Parts: sequence; structure tokens; C-alpha cells
Amino acid sequence: MGERKIVALGGGHGLYATLTAMRYLTRDVTAVVTVADDGGSSGRMRAELDVIPPGDLRMALAALMTAPAAVADLADDRDRARRVLWAEALQHRFRGRGALAGHPVGNLLLAGLSELVGDPVAALDELREIFDVDGRVLPMSLVPLDIEADVSGLESDPRISRCIRGQVAVATTPGKVRRVRLLPERPPSCEQALTAITEADLVVLGPGSWFSSVIPHVLVPEQLAALRRSRAAKVLVVNLAPEPGETPGFSVERHLHVLHAHADAFRVDHVVVDSASVPAGREREYLERAAALFGATLHVGDLAVPGKHVHDPEKLAQLIDSLYEGTWNLLSKTSP
Amino acid sequence: MGERKIVALGGGHGLYATLTAMRYLTRDVTAVVTVADDGGSSGRMRAELDVIPPGDLRMALAALMTAPAAVADLADDRDRARRVLWAEALQHRFRGRGALAGHPVGNLLLAGLSELVGDPVAALDELREIFDVDGRVLPMSLVPLDIEADVSGLESDPRISRCIRGQVAVATTPGKVRRVRLLPERPPSCEQALTAITEADLVVLGPGSWFSSVIPHVLVPEQLAALRRSRAAKVLVVNLAPEPGETPGFSVERHLHVLHAHADAFRVDHVVVDSASVPAGREREYLERAAALFGATLHVGDLAVPGKHVHDPEKLAQLIDSLYEGTWNLLSKTSP
Repeated sequence: MGERKIVALGGGHGLYATLTAMRYLTRDVTAVVTVADDGGSSGRMRAELDVIPPGDLRMALAALMTAPAAVADLADDRDRARRVLWAEALQHRFRGRGALAGHPVGNLLLAGLSELVGDPVAALDELREIFDVDGRVLPMSLVPLDIEADVSGLESDPRISRCIRGQVAVATTPGKVRRVRLLPERPPSCEQALTAITEADLVVLGPGSWFSSVIPHVLVPEQLAALRRSRAAKVLVVNLAPEPGETPGFSVERHLHVLHAHADAFRVDHVVVDSASVPAGREREYLERAAALFGATLHVGDLAVPGKHVHDPEKLAQLIDSLYEGTWNLLSKTSP
Repeated sequence: MGERKIVALGGGHGLYATLTAMRYLTRDVTAVVTVADDGGSSGRMRAELDVIPPGDLRMALAALMTAPAAVADLADDRDRARRVLWAEALQHRFRGRGALAGHPVGNLLLAGLSELVGDPVAALDELREIFDVDGRVLPMSLVPLDIEADVSGLESDPRISRCIRGQVAVATTPGKVRRVRLLPERPPSCEQALTAITEADLVVLGPGSWFSSVIPHVLVPEQLAALRRSRAAKVLVVNLAPEPGETPGFSVERHLHVLHAHADAFRVDHVVVDSASVPAGREREYLERAAALFGATLHVGDLAVPGKHVHDPEKLAQLIDSLYEGTWNLLSKTSP
């Protein structure tokens, strides 16, 4: 009997947390990662090389390498130390003030290998093999994407909306993001990601930067079609808190409405929300109705690391396990 | 019974050939590599990061990875393909015209890992482990070195010599290099390299850029002392041809005299020379006398790749094997 398969869709730190969480539930975790970043090291590399932005892919690989359940699987202390060292190396950013400063070693390794083999999926698979990592990391698309947003509140007349382009520009706009698009508008999907979604037992979307890491996953037409076709259970994990740039003042309900407005055919089974962000009384009813837009039931639980706006991977794993009546056999319980 | 141990001293393409050759004779090959390069990618990295120049170290690692005898040792075609791919990846230089262009991926990986762990020897050992390479690569010194040369022929008066600094400047000077020094003048040696020399059964020096890759090995005081103390057999391999910058018009005899002038206490057992570069008659006698400066006997053989000024690793391995009456049991004979 093979392990059950989980696919996690997202990008950045949100996906890092989800992958760490899902690794408690199975060894067969596939990350499908947004490739629209145009800031920092990834932005510099896109500008000078013909590569998809490597940053979020690198971070997803590091998450699968150092998830506690993955490290616990290793044979001995030496293997565990080596695993942690290599994940640190991938994440390590060059010091100094020169041309290399700020580039994580893993971004350079992934971009160089992609340039050599001409295929980011093959490059990611080679990295997974050499570091002996369970699970897989895939890009959402094989071409670098851009995000374009309609943003209001930038003019004195609040009804006027302007078009803002670029992930960094969208994430930091002082205006209100109304709608995002991908450029190219119907980007080619990643075939291996479609297969993973089709064969998955469970697909998890979010948390993450809502407009730039979560919503893009339902804007790739073939990927949305695969999500609709897949018989996998589907869970949407909503952010713990609004983000200053993209979603200032957004309620949980608003997060759901915005996602639905971008892909009204998208369906999930469960919407998972942290208890601290759920209002009491009548408003909870509105929230249940918003979840129903996706055909989903609402699940509220304590999910945060105390005092931080960060999901606790073990709590998230436990909540998702409970949705399926504990049938996932949390790996952390069975590991020594 | 452990394998017999060979240490190869050098740098650059010369060392690449020697390592490939020595890997036919044993799996236990240690490269000790010059770290005075200030050109190309290595030069750019030394200028902006606190690291020893990685280029020659990377090349030595790639040589140990892809030596035919090393690849033949691997279990199956998939392992062999993976080995070759990763060696290519380490050697792959970023394309484009940006800040990364021209940097080999392996230089970035080694420099980043060294920056993280704070020790180039530990970083090199991690690379060896992750790529599952037999043998070891060590730097000659743990600090970046510079080369300074006394060069004549740059002024109208040929007796006047000028001081030229930097490996690239020395290698490309239109003048005649008379003498080189290292900066710092008595650089700290690499402890693991001293141990390897002490425990070796055979030490090979050269071929390589004579002033910038070969002679530096006898200019590190502790390394020279270790070479003198070591009971290893010692072989000096002379270049196939003069190099336009460093050694224009140099005869084999001149190569030997120049090395001797830099370290008159250095002794070797055998001097190995390609037959095409050995003159006939009386001059051969002079050459034997030059070898005798090191206490060595002269060995002449066909060592070149036909039509190229490059050592054929298999021929070099066979000649060295023959010096010891075939006791090295060439691995290529025993491999399938």
C-alpha cells in the first residue's frame, strides 16, 4: 500500500508552514508553488537569466527537508545534522555588499541547474534526489509569471482604479487591491502538477499572501480544471491575520469572497480558520455562508503559534487529521 | 587492507589531469590545491566575500567525480548519469550578461557553504559527502593567497626587474618571470593537507602553470617540511609545453632549475617528462643532471593526448605505475 498523497498549493512562508504540517500526515507531499515573485534575489535572477523565480521553490524544498517529521525519519544523528546543514545552506544568503550579496545559495543552485538541464522540474527533481528528500516540489507554471492588479484608492476619487504590475508593487500598494490577473493571462500549467492534483488524496490551498500566492493557483486555467476534476478532498486554510500591503483590514469573510470572485467554479470541502480571527454570533453565520460559496463547511480551531501570526504546523496537521476522523495516522505519533 | 594513498599537488587544468590519472591507481586520492587565483569568477568572489578562491578547488572536485575510474565504480547507469550531471552542474557557468554571468555554480555552492560553516575544509568535505565522491579536496592554505613575482624585461634595461602582483598579472606578463613569492610570505598551511602528505604512499607535483600552480606548493613552509619528512614516493610531472605568459620558451631543464631555485631542499624520486619535449643527445644529459638536483631519476614516456598539449591521464597513470613495477594494479584493468 502506497502512502496517501497530499498536494499543497501556495507560495512563500505560508506554504512553508503548510508543507511542514502536511509532512506529519504523509511522506508523499507535493508542493505546487507560485512563480510570480519579482522581488529580492528572485527578481534579480529573473531580470538577468532566463529562469522562473527560484525563491519560493527553494523555500518549499527546505520545508520538506527540515519538517520535524522528515528529520525524525532519518537513520541517525549524522544524517539529521547533514540534512539540517544542507537546508541551512540552501537558505543561506551571501553576505557582503557585492553582486552576490543577498542571493540564497539554493536560488543559485536551482537556477544554475535549471539553466543547464533546461527544465526547472528536472532540476527540482535532481535536487530532491541528491538531498534524498521525500516529497516533491513543482512550479505552478514553467514560465515566469507576473501579477497585475486593479487597485483603487490611489486617486482622490475612490471609484477610479489603477492597474499595478509586479508582485512587489501589488504587495506594497497603499491602495486597495480589487482584482488580480496573471501575465501571461492564461499561463501554461506544469503537467506534473496537474498529475499530482489528479492523483492526490488531499489538496490544501493556503495560507499565504492572498493575492500573490494563493489566488494565482486558481488563475491557471488547466490547474483550476484539474482541481475541479480531482476527487481529492480539498481544504482551504485562511490566513491568521490581514497583511498590511495586500489585504489590510481584510476579515476572514472578505478573504473568502475575494477568492470566490476570482474563480467562482472553485470548490473545496473544508474551510479552516483560526479561532482568534472568527467573530462571535451573527458574523460567524456570515462566515459559514461565505464558506458555502465553495460548497465547504467551516472549521474553527486553535491554529496559531501563541503570540504570533504564524500557523503552528502540528496544530494544523491535527485539525486536518480530525476532519478525516483521525484516519491520517499522524506520523509524529508513530515516530520515535 | 586500506587502499594506498596518493596526494596530488597542483591547481587548475594540470591538477584536473593528474587527479583523473591518479584515480586509475587508487580510490584514495587527495588533491591539495593552490588558492592564489585572482582572476575570473574566483577573483570576483575573493573581492566581495571573505573566502578562499573556489575555482581550482571546484575543478579538482569535478575531476574526482568524473574520472573514468570513478564513474566506472558506480553501481548503475542512473548513478553514472547523475554523477556526470552534477559534475557538469558544478562546472556550469551562468549565462547572460548580469551580475552572475560567468560564475560556475560550484564556485557559488562552495563559497556559500564555506561562508555558512566558516571553514572551507568542512565545506569541501560536505560536498564530497553529498556527491558521494571517493577522495578528498583540500586547499593549500586556509587563507586566500597572492602571488608576487620579480619580472625582468619590462624596462629597456634587461637587468632591471620589477615586482608584479597577482596571479593573472604574473601569468600574462610580457616580461620574464624570475622568481615568485606568496603573500602572506609564510602562509598558514592546511593541517589536513599536511596529514595527507605525511600518510601518503605517493605524492605527485605538477603539471600546471609552473609559477602560479606548481611552485607555490614548495613555498608554504610547513607543507615543504611535510614533503621532506614524508616517506611517500614523490613524482614531479613536468609540463608538456611552455605557457605563453609564465614560461615562454622554457625548456624542461629550465622548468626544473626554476623549481629548484625556489626550494633547493625539495627532493623527489622521479621526474616524469613527455618524450616530445626531451631533446636528443647531449641535452638529455643536462636534463638528467637537472633531475639529479632533486635527487631524482628521469623518466621519459609518451604522455600526451595526440596533437594536444594535454596529458593523457591513462598514459600518465601507466607510466607512474611502471615506476613502481606495476604494483599499483591499475583500477581500469580491474573494472568491468
